Amino acid sequence: MTKNLLEGEEDAFILVNEAGSSPYVLVCEHASNRLPKQLGNLGLSADDLQKHIAWDIGAEGVSRLLSRLLDAPLVLQRYSRLAYDCNRPPDSPGAMPEMSEATPVPGNMGLSARDKMARVSAIYWPFHERLARMLDQRACEGRATSLVTIHSFTKMYKGKEREVELGILFDRDARIADRLIKAFPKVDVRLNEPYGPKDGVLHTLNLHAAPRGLKSAMIEIRNDFIANERGQNEWAQRLAMPLIHATTK
Amino acid sequence: MTKNLLEGEEDAFILVNEAGSSPYVLVCEHASNRLPKQLGNLGLSADDLQKHIAWDIGAEGVSRLLSRLLDAPLVLQRYSRLAYDCNRPPDSPGAMPEMSEATPVPGNMGLSARDKMARVSAIYWPFHERLARMLDQRACEGRATSLVTIHSFTKMYKGKEREVELGILFDRDARIADRLIKAFPKVDVRLNEPYGPKDGVLHTLNLHAAPRGLKSAMIEIRNDFIANERGQNEWAQRLAMPLIHATTK
Repeated sequence: MTKNLLEGEEDAFILVNEAGSSPYVLVCEHASNRLPKQLGNLGLSADDLQKHIAWDIGAEGVSRLLSRLLDAPLVLQRYSRLAYDCNRPPDSPGAMPEMSEATPVPGNMGLSARDKMARVSAIYWPFHERLARMLDQRACEGRATSLVTIHSFTKMYKGKEREVELGILFDRDARIADRLIKAFPKVDVRLNEPYGPKDGVLHTLNLHAAPRGLKSAMIEIRNDFIANERGQNEWAQRLAMPLIHATTK
Repeated sequence: MTKNLLEGEEDAFILVNEAGSSPYVLVCEHASNRLPKQLGNLGLSADDLQKHIAWDIGAEGVSRLLSRLLDAPLVLQRYSRLAYDCNRPPDSPGAMPEMSEATPVPGNMGLSARDKMARVSAIYWPFHERLARMLDQRACEGRATSLVTIHSFTKMYKGKEREVELGILFDRDARIADRLIKAFPKVDVRLNEPYGPKDGVLHTLNLHAAPRGLKSAMIEIRNDFIANERGQNEWAQRLAMPLIHATTK
């Protein structure tokens, strides 16, 4: 058996408003920059741990506000993607990255199978199993579900400035994306930008929505818009009505 | 909480040769016609419970023999697809079918959300979670995995005779199928027959192989060929070498 990485710490998932009445179930895999105590700081500075490499800045705030506006259940990951990136399968180099963008992550270098399994079983499994159980419970109750994940991205990436402000990502199922894309006339909104299916960033949707036939989309907001509460509020309000319309017949 | 449907009975999954050296992990969702005691006979006759509606005749035998020939791990479902069809998500009408082919299943009529959840949590979750854990364990160990599911189908379906003898089913990933299809010159082998992705029969592959990027295929053997041990042996032998070649670079 692998030792428990979260011994004496809180569970990997945070469940908000499970009984919410919305057809949406919201997910925020990169909500937090917190690291499990046993991992220390992974050899990174406090400064690095405030950056996008550790979490999606502003995504938790937007997710929680959207959860309230839509009355939707929300599953958040409590720990940093540097410990385990729950939007990646275990064999992806990005799951426990040795290098994040241009920053080496010393505490992730040369992990053994046992080290990796400790993270998978403490962080990845409980998070995805909890989400799967909620989705299946809803199916048994005969409730329709649309799955939406909330992310944020940096304006500057590898020295270049991105133009896109809001990304609507999808793989095979464009039912929500096709509606959302038309709902933001004043925003530079693009489909499958700044990332798309080929970047391997649709793991959560592929793991849960696709095999269940659920409508789904991944939302990427430029993180300078949602760095503070005011911006988070503004964007949650901006997203709420288009989301409601996007899943109505 | 839902009551435990398998109280005092054996687990839903059977794990064979977990440490096997093969790149293949084999799965047999429809191995058995056994019903959980609490479900009685679902209102069906002993005769009906011997038929294809309850299980894939011969599939367990072929799977176990293939597991030995390939030295591959094998996950079998211990209970009948009439209790829960592990190759269907919970919201599929086929998951706990009220009607199977032309046979009404009285014990599956009008199930409540609680009844459904009892089956999902006793049969569907443990089976798929065990499989997911094995796949992720292998990923952490740096082992490549190809996922193959073993099924059988009836020669006669809704009064018509099928010509296909061996079906190789796949959805987006044809890497294994494209090789297997060429390896049976003397057999009427067809891609995505007698079922295909649109019939919703690729749930296990979509749930486990697709989100992890694993090579995968579903194999369907006409069940009159494998009704007895001799036939099972013959077909396991026939499949083994093509499978080995299909996953070699």
